Amino acid sequence: MIKKLLVDVDCGVDDAQAIMLGLAAPNVEILGITCVHGNTTVENVCKNTLRILQACNKLEIPVFRGAAKPILGNTIDAGHFHGMDGLGDAPDPNAPGLDLVQKEGAVSAMIRIVNENPGEVSLVATAPLTNLALAVRMDPSLPSKLRGLYIMGGNTESRGNTTVCAEFNFAADPEAAYIVLNEYQCPTYLACWEFTCYSKLSWEFCDVWLAQDSQKARFMRQIIRHSLEASKSERSEKEFVDGTGFISCDSYAMAAAVDDSFIIESDHYPVTVELTGTHTRGMMVVDTLDHLKKTHKAVIMKKVDLGKFEQMMMAALK
Amino acid sequence: MIKKLLVDVDCGVDDAQAIMLGLAAPNVEILGITCVHGNTTVENVCKNTLRILQACNKLEIPVFRGAAKPILGNTIDAGHFHGMDGLGDAPDPNAPGLDLVQKEGAVSAMIRIVNENPGEVSLVATAPLTNLALAVRMDPSLPSKLRGLYIMGGNTESRGNTTVCAEFNFAADPEAAYIVLNEYQCPTYLACWEFTCYSKLSWEFCDVWLAQDSQKARFMRQIIRHSLEASKSERSEKEFVDGTGFISCDSYAMAAAVDDSFIIESDHYPVTVELTGTHTRGMMVVDTLDHLKKTHKAVIMKKVDLGKFEQMMMAALK
Amino acid sequence: MIKKLLVDVDCGVDDAQAIMLGLAAPNVEILGITCVHGNTTVENVCKNTLRILQACNKLEIPVFRGAAKPILGNTIDAGHFHGMDGLGDAPDPNAPGLDLVQKEGAVSAMIRIVNENPGEVSLVATAPLTNLALAVRMDPSLPSKLRGLYIMGGNTESRGNTTVCAEFNFAADPEAAYIVLNEYQCPTYLACWEFTCYSKLSWEFCDVWLAQDSQKARFMRQIIRHSLEASKSERSEKEFVDGTGFISCDSYAMAAAVDDSFIIESDHYPVTVELTGTHTRGMMVVDTLDHLKKTHKAVIMKKVDLGKFEQMMMAALK
Amino acid sequence: MIKKLLVDVDCGVDDAQAIMLGLAAPNVEILGITCVHGNTTVENVCKNTLRILQACNKLEIPVFRGAAKPILGNTIDAGHFHGMDGLGDAPDPNAPGLDLVQKEGAVSAMIRIVNENPGEVSLVATAPLTNLALAVRMDPSLPSKLRGLYIMGGNTESRGNTTVCAEFNFAADPEAAYIVLNEYQCPTYLACWEFTCYSKLSWEFCDVWLAQDSQKARFMRQIIRHSLEASKSERSEKEFVDGTGFISCDSYAMAAAVDDSFIIESDHYPVTVELTGTHTRGMMVVDTLDHLKKTHKAVIMKKVDLGKFEQMMMAALK
Ligand SMILES: [Ca+2]
Ligand SMILES: [Ca+2]
Ligand SMILES: [Ca+2]
Ligand SMILES: [Ca+2]
Repeated sequence: MIKKLLVDVDCGVDDAQAIMLGLAAPNVEILGITCVHGNTTVENVCKNTLRILQACNKLEIPVFRGAAKPILGNTIDAGHFHGMDGLGDAPDPNAPGLDLVQKEGAVSAMIRIVNENPGEVSLVATAPLTNLALAVRMDPSLPSKLRGLYIMGGNTESRGNTTVCAEFNFAADPEAAYIVLNEYQCPTYLACWEFTCYSKLSWEFCDVWLAQDSQKARFMRQIIRHSLEASKSERSEKEFVDGTGFISCDSYAMAAAVDDSFIIESDHYPVTVELTGTHTRGMMVVDTLDHLKKTHKAVIMKKVDLGKFEQMMMAALK
Repeated sequence: MIKKLLVDVDCGVDDAQAIMLGLAAPNVEILGITCVHGNTTVENVCKNTLRILQACNKLEIPVFRGAAKPILGNTIDAGHFHGMDGLGDAPDPNAPGLDLVQKEGAVSAMIRIVNENPGEVSLVATAPLTNLALAVRMDPSLPSKLRGLYIMGGNTESRGNTTVCAEFNFAADPEAAYIVLNEYQCPTYLACWEFTCYSKLSWEFCDVWLAQDSQKARFMRQIIRHSLEASKSERSEKEFVDGTGFISCDSYAMAAAVDDSFIIESDHYPVTVELTGTHTRGMMVVDTLDHLKKTHKAVIMKKVDLGKFEQMMMAALK
Repeated sequence: MIKKLLVDVDCGVDDAQAIMLGLAAPNVEILGITCVHGNTTVENVCKNTLRILQACNKLEIPVFRGAAKPILGNTIDAGHFHGMDGLGDAPDPNAPGLDLVQKEGAVSAMIRIVNENPGEVSLVATAPLTNLALAVRMDPSLPSKLRGLYIMGGNTESRGNTTVCAEFNFAADPEAAYIVLNEYQCPTYLACWEFTCYSKLSWEFCDVWLAQDSQKARFMRQIIRHSLEASKSERSEKEFVDGTGFISCDSYAMAAAVDDSFIIESDHYPVTVELTGTHTRGMMVVDTLDHLKKTHKAVIMKKVDLGKFEQMMMAALK
Repeated sequence: MIKKLLVDVDCGVDDAQAIMLGLAAPNVEILGITCVHGNTTVENVCKNTLRILQACNKLEIPVFRGAAKPILGNTIDAGHFHGMDGLGDAPDPNAPGLDLVQKEGAVSAMIRIVNENPGEVSLVATAPLTNLALAVRMDPSLPSKLRGLYIMGGNTESRGNTTVCAEFNFAADPEAAYIVLNEYQCPTYLACWEFTCYSKLSWEFCDVWLAQDSQKARFMRQIIRHSLEASKSERSEKEFVDGTGFISCDSYAMAAAVDDSFIIESDHYPVTVELTGTHTRGMMVVDTLDHLKKTHKAVIMKKVDLGKFEQMMMAALK
């Protein structure tokens, strides 16, 4: 059976990798890509998404512009890691223009596409969750019509990579993360920050991966240079929970959506987001003690099939 | 010149009074009424709005259903005051059906109507501000296309009527109030809780007002009974800042939108909303000291023309 | 009957005025003065207190050094108003030395003195409430042994003079204010910020008051110069709730302690302090709605005998 | 060289184990034991401490009564685990009376004893940190005169055992924990909740340990029964981070104080405490990213010599 995916991104170099992994997967149809602020402005995210689709000869996939700001309005960005343009500051003179972005907004498109394919769409969200939060407020029935929700974001051990205790996607819009974790009652799979650190790939793999002789690999070599250097900075060393390595965060969420056997071990707990802490605003809260009396439990990835992951990553650049 | 109004309500007996005041005003065109959760469920708000329009022979005005929940999702209500159905628990067997509600959602309609009438529409909001908050996230250009924004909500002296320090409309969706006060940079006029208390009408006026011989007055006599009794309860005595009286909160916002000379005295300060306090969550914050370094200032009503107000109220039930 | 007072200060020009008002009052015995951080460092507060006592020929009153920091440790100060030394930056070469400060600490002395005079001592607190908060944690029985507690601090209408919504003494140690308002179950009289603004004296009175021919008036003319200028600054104009004037905040608390007939009108409500708000941390919370279910109510001054106040103030400099 | 210890406890069955471990250690002198609210009331803590000293024939060690409440005043307890009396609800008719408690209060005693032995005292705190917080506010020079501070409390991976994200000793007085972690600039060693779970002993060891033929072992068998059962409850299974086992939390802090070679591996990070979170109030915050710009770093235990630990534990009951 064909898997129908809708992907919400803030490209982002690892969003690029996730999209390319999804595009390369057999039996997967990407119905659309919705863009949101995050690693860079939503305009840049639209541009970057089009460049990725062009590099993969998939410009027929519709791209939608979403929220320019988080729910409460105060933007942060991640330019130090992904480059100011979100894609390694390696501009392409032949990049497609923003006129290729759909007229329909991302939130409307998300609602429409899911309603046109009830029970069939898996939503892969690798960005601040603003679009998803707005969508459920516009159409409260949306989550019940999803097949599944795959999120890269949040953390489980209070190890922040953006604020002291919060991961970037959640820190960039804590209210949106709160809304999504509390309102999306569909099967929800979380690739959290510490998990991606513990599941990193080796630099040796990265070298082999990038050395492939293909248009896609050439594209990746250009856009990844900036974040590879950033990965080896003192700041990244502090952020990485389990030592240095090649961490393609967003790709774990995509891999789980693409292949049901990817997740080998997981925790099942109710989760929410701290909104009011001085140091912990945006931190994911895992209710191991069952204090919150919530019935819905998220699937928190603990161990995944890294052999499969390397294969999917290799295929992404073929 | 005709004034074009868009009205966002959670009817609510005083919403009914405000709508009827607007409908009776000369040179005013109500382009639509958007409904939102608040005093009762959004379904009830839609029903109540249709009943009011029917009582005024104005069912041609389109009614739109909006958000069923506040931004973060946790609803409160005001059934103790307005009745469980929001309109005095005085059901009408001949009430119009929900099939008269527009297919288009409230947020989409708000964005469409304002964009069709750029610079001309005044938005009158007498309810939790969820619809307005969602609208500006969907279309950030919305506020710049408004003629003005008239809000009943918030408070200026930390006197709450719902929580210790917060007024109902803001307490019911603090995040929405925050978003609206911070993102709507258009001329913004606030009828806050303490102001409405200081500007109350007499019970004698109320008697005369209700005693009018008209279909509208008969309708009002039915729906107001519950809240008149509640107004004289011990709880209301504690809530009313300046003693008992007839306080039609929402009508002050509508009167200001309808008549530019209604406001006689006002304060001009930057305002925002406290989101994180234990006792003060939802409280409006008036930045008299200019600590917040915001350029936009709200017009906070202090003194209004109560003679005109009584005339407008009388006309509403004629 | 002699009134026994214990005074807790952060001198501060208006603390000086309050102390001098107390020293000049008939039938009042000041058992000791405890010093605390606040308008300036606790060392300066000790020095300033000794200078005031010297100016009044009352160096026999014992002075105790108290807390150097608020409960949580982060100090603010009020140098812009009271001068960097807290007393108008008008140093006196003949000032008494810190060797006159008692060896016993302020908190121990407070506990000892109250226990030596059970039921007889009124505590007058015109500073951040750190000493009082520590004292009740060291000896929980302390409040029950007080005759009364008179505090200058807090606010009732969310009008801040230090942060957007908080008054200086409470903003300088919110946790201490919280502890005192919640643990001191004795009769508690509050002279809050807005009240002192509404009860200001005229500049004409101030001129006459300062023009007296006495050692004390000469002393006051020296130390008041800086804060008189500050009173007329743009910043103070924003802070003063009800227009410019001579506002000797701390003296209202002392006057109430000295003369039982000083308070003419008051509100009786449970009160507490907001600890966690973004804009409202340190704001006093008045529970007019009885939501907090507290049995103890504070006496919040609304109207005082300003004729008597002027007489007491005049006597203070005689 | 003799190690001089001052021990602050809320006995507590594991406090009892920690005290007995310390009493049995060679070259250790316990100068005093200060009591504080926590697992039970401070009165019970005093009684329990005296019982422990009696069981060890060490009633000559002075016991001091400390704070009855946390800084802000709202007590929680741990009766479900330690029994309502804190010591397994196994009363002893021959228990010593409270008249053996010193007249001097715990905070005063702490300050006096450290000042009498400058640079020599190690403080072992296995309870809510109220006494230590009050002491540093009374005498800011205290931390600089300590040899070291050994704390059982806090957590590193947001795994709570009391609230969703907070450990008992920190949750029971978050402000005190904040004050201590921020003001005690002496060498500070933390045995955090997750660490004690990862370092648990086996039930087999526990059996052997309790089976010893001695007065102390008989005493321990009586008081431990309740918490052994509680350890095997569903609730404890959720709390224990790494599966069931014998976790004598407080003993790790004591063991580290007693033997400098006990800690094999540790992290060195600035730490503080979240005070304002909805779910995270009381959670320890580990600043791995160096965002807080604090110079003082705590030693967070990661791996200890469990062989030595078993030996010390065995000796404690000999
Ligand atoms: Ca991303
Ligand atoms: Ca309303
Ligand atoms: Ca003062
Ligand atoms: Ca303990």
